[in-house]
Amino acid sequence: MFNKLLIIGCGLIGSSLLRASINKKISKKILVFEKSKKYKNQIKKISSKVLILKKIDKNIEDVDFVILSTPMSAYEKIIPSLNKFLKPKCLITDIGSTKKNVLKIKSQKLKKSLKWIMSHPIAGSEVSGPEYGSKNLFLNKWCIILNDNDKARQEKLIKFWKKIGSKIIKMDVNQHDKIFSMTSHLPHLIAYNLIKTALDFQKKYGKNIIQYSAGGLRDFSRTAASNEIMWRDVFFSNKKNMIEVINLFIKNLNDFKRNIIKSENSKILKKLKNTKKVRRQIIELKQDISKPDFGRETN
Amino acid sequence: MFNKLLIIGCGLIGSSLLRASINKKISKKILVFEKSKKYKNQIKKISSKVLILKKIDKNIEDVDFVILSTPMSAYEKIIPSLNKFLKPKCLITDIGSTKKNVLKIKSQKLKKSLKWIMSHPIAGSEVSGPEYGSKNLFLNKWCIILNDNDKARQEKLIKFWKKIGSKIIKMDVNQHDKIFSMTSHLPHLIAYNLIKTALDFQKKYGKNIIQYSAGGLRDFSRTAASNEIMWRDVFFSNKKNMIEVINLFIKNLNDFKRNIIKSENSKILKKLKNTKKVRRQIIELKQDISKPDFGRETN
Repeated sequence: MFNKLLIIGCGLIGSSLLRASINKKISKKILVFEKSKKYKNQIKKISSKVLILKKIDKNIEDVDFVILSTPMSAYEKIIPSLNKFLKPKCLITDIGSTKKNVLKIKSQKLKKSLKWIMSHPIAGSEVSGPEYGSKNLFLNKWCIILNDNDKARQEKLIKFWKKIGSKIIKMDVNQHDKIFSMTSHLPHLIAYNLIKTALDFQKKYGKNIIQYSAGGLRDFSRTAASNEIMWRDVFFSNKKNMIEVINLFIKNLNDFKRNIIKSENSKILKKLKNTKKVRRQIIELKQDISKPDFGRETN
Repeated sequence: MFNKLLIIGCGLIGSSLLRASINKKISKKILVFEKSKKYKNQIKKISSKVLILKKIDKNIEDVDFVILSTPMSAYEKIIPSLNKFLKPKCLITDIGSTKKNVLKIKSQKLKKSLKWIMSHPIAGSEVSGPEYGSKNLFLNKWCIILNDNDKARQEKLIKFWKKIGSKIIKMDVNQHDKIFSMTSHLPHLIAYNLIKTALDFQKKYGKNIIQYSAGGLRDFSRTAASNEIMWRDVFFSNKKNMIEVINLFIKNLNDFKRNIIKSENSKILKKLKNTKKVRRQIIELKQDISKPDFGRETN
């Protein structure tokens, strides 16, 4: 598909892209730029054929596909090097979780002759780093491709993601940031907030309560262990939508509180039954496995 | 250990108690009382030796161990039958998720000559019914035994739970209801509330957003698929503690909202880093498995 692929940032997602690209023979050559020494040593073990760059320099001149998979807050620092060395035939993409901010940065900072079409693969985990990457990370997962006028290169980008296993849907920037504020960004914030609340409660109460977390708290602790740089970036760059979904969440939680205070039986039962149906939908839509308790075996 | 065990209510927990009791030879005879016809047919398949009662009648006169594993809201209706038929030598326990309410009911309704010592095994799942039960459900899980003056019978109860694999801790009623409002009841309410919020958002927005739930929402949908009768009972019977933890949660969420609005970098990073440590604690405390993403394989 490509002659020279450059992956910038090679943590969980970048190294999974690397593994999948090797597996599906996406490119004749693959270059990686990664700042962390620890990560670099782990990447060397993935394949000896990958060239690990010391810096982004003229080695990248004839690169025809770039994937940015650093935290979004690093994009601005990287763009000048792309402007300096890349040729117009090159296609750039990123894997950032919010898009309005990325659109703004690339519109303002990227050289007009260069082409960047945004992607967002809905895949990840609470762990970070190349040691946890997998060539199958994107398999049967959605990848959102952001609308672009250059249909030929958009098709090429779609072909890449399909080749490594993704299901594709096209969206515009506003639609994307709105949908994922609810299905991804709010759930992460809520998980962080629940664990923060448990810590505050523990401090106030003076007893180790974390040891009893198998009753429900443990699930939230997984999500709340996600990469703090990535999620700080997401929350800050999707501010307007975040505020809207937080407000809706608080309104609903106050309603629940009222139902509990007043023992409103039929109101609360109706809500609890309706949420149950969502689980079935999610399983039917192949967004999760059907096994009870995620098939988790703790014994 | 016992001559005649009676399990009242034989869903996920009751049928797991049944399976574990058979496996560990807890009692010479086992009786089950269950109202659902569907459940009764499933229970017959577990063992042909179990006597399934049509009603709670004089068949239970020589029972020496009773476990109530119905939803807590059914306890009040069952107690008169226990008063009528059981003998003082019998030991009664329950598996309810809140305890102050159960203490009140048994103090008011149970015949003074009968002995009921409360238990709470921290085990369960989002699915209901005997088909999902397992003899290993309690293995290495906490079981809370509520303080009681009758030390001999408390020891007997502890011996039972240990025999089927539980780790034991003793607590008083107030301590129990407080701790589990945070580690279990609030997480469930928050999961229900997040899914409710996603449904409201979807309705308002007019697009199917549930199909993109692999970004985080799906985890909450598992918890929010839990049994609605059980959880209604929990929320209503732990009202005071629920209000306290809901208020703490909302206060913290408003703080997070402010951090996001003001782009308070160091404040938000500190919080996100602290919550990560809790995940490690939970894994070290063997409250969850260490595999990323719960070891879930969705491909």
